[in-house]
Amino acid sequence: MSEGVEWALHSCVNLAWSGPDRAVPAARLAAWHDLPPAYLNKQLQALARAGILTSTPGPRGGFRLTRPLDRITLMDVVAAVEGPEEAFRCAEIRQQGPGGGPAASYAAECAIAHAMGRAELAWRRELAARTLDEIRQQAEQQAPGAPERLRAWLEEAG
Amino acid sequence: MSEGVEWALHSCVNLAWSGPDRAVPAARLAAWHDLPPAYLNKQLQALARAGILTSTPGPRGGFRLTRPLDRITLMDVVAAVEGPEEAFRCAEIRQQGPGGGPAASYAAECAIAHAMGRAELAWRRELAARTLDEIRQQAEQQAPGAPERLRAWLEEAG
Repeated sequence: MSEGVEWALHSCVNLAWSGPDRAVPAARLAAWHDLPPAYLNKQLQALARAGILTSTPGPRGGFRLTRPLDRITLMDVVAAVEGPEEAFRCAEIRQQGPGGGPAASYAAECAIAHAMGRAELAWRRELAARTLDEIRQQAEQQAPGAPERLRAWLEEAG
Repeated sequence: MSEGVEWALHSCVNLAWSGPDRAVPAARLAAWHDLPPAYLNKQLQALARAGILTSTPGPRGGFRLTRPLDRITLMDVVAAVEGPEEAFRCAEIRQQGPGGGPAASYAAECAIAHAMGRAELAWRRELAARTLDEIRQQAEQQAPGAPERLRAWLEEAG
């Protein structure tokens, strides 16, 4: 999984902390955690394409959440950044070469693809059951001053 | 996930079908499903390092299972091929830049890393609960002639 997943998840929480009325430029979000701005921008654009953020151009523009964190799941963000494809992609090698059997024997899904798909479903279910608002709450328990610090830093930056 | 996972899983089932007394060279296993032999050999070596296969050198050498399929899980094979690392690797970006808080606030695991780890655990649990013998049984229901065809083909090849 790309490091962009961690960046995108933190950025969504940071956007919630920065407040619903403020659009935050990618460069500011990147500077807050010392990340490469161009690469973070790529992740933020992916979140915008997935409808999780909106992007406003211009000098006072930036990124903003389109909905509250309790309506964004970890799965939403992972799918936006990593794409919707399954991690295990069955190439149906069972049908290749002298080992390939009669066509009729492939009517049912390969047992390997089926089992790998079930495991991936369990992973997706966990991610889909967890909202970013739960993450935000836990983060605020650990670092109660974080939202206020971020807002003050953004004010200062202008 | 690399395509080597699919190859390694099928190869283990093929080795079970070829019988416990026969060592099968990587090139033969590769030819059965028309796979690139050098790259399959790399996966088989990884399975050997993980103790799932043994490799015997020499003209009558090859790969062999070290234990019955009901004692090899999907997780064993995936870990052997992909390595034991988690797919989501937390880089602790929360501690970086002006966004980093006081050191004490990082005593607890980041809520994002924790949630991502839980999902990955669900995935691993599914893979660990499924043995290759279940895969073999399902494959034989779909293609009852497969084990016999493989053995005949190996005999012919000498």
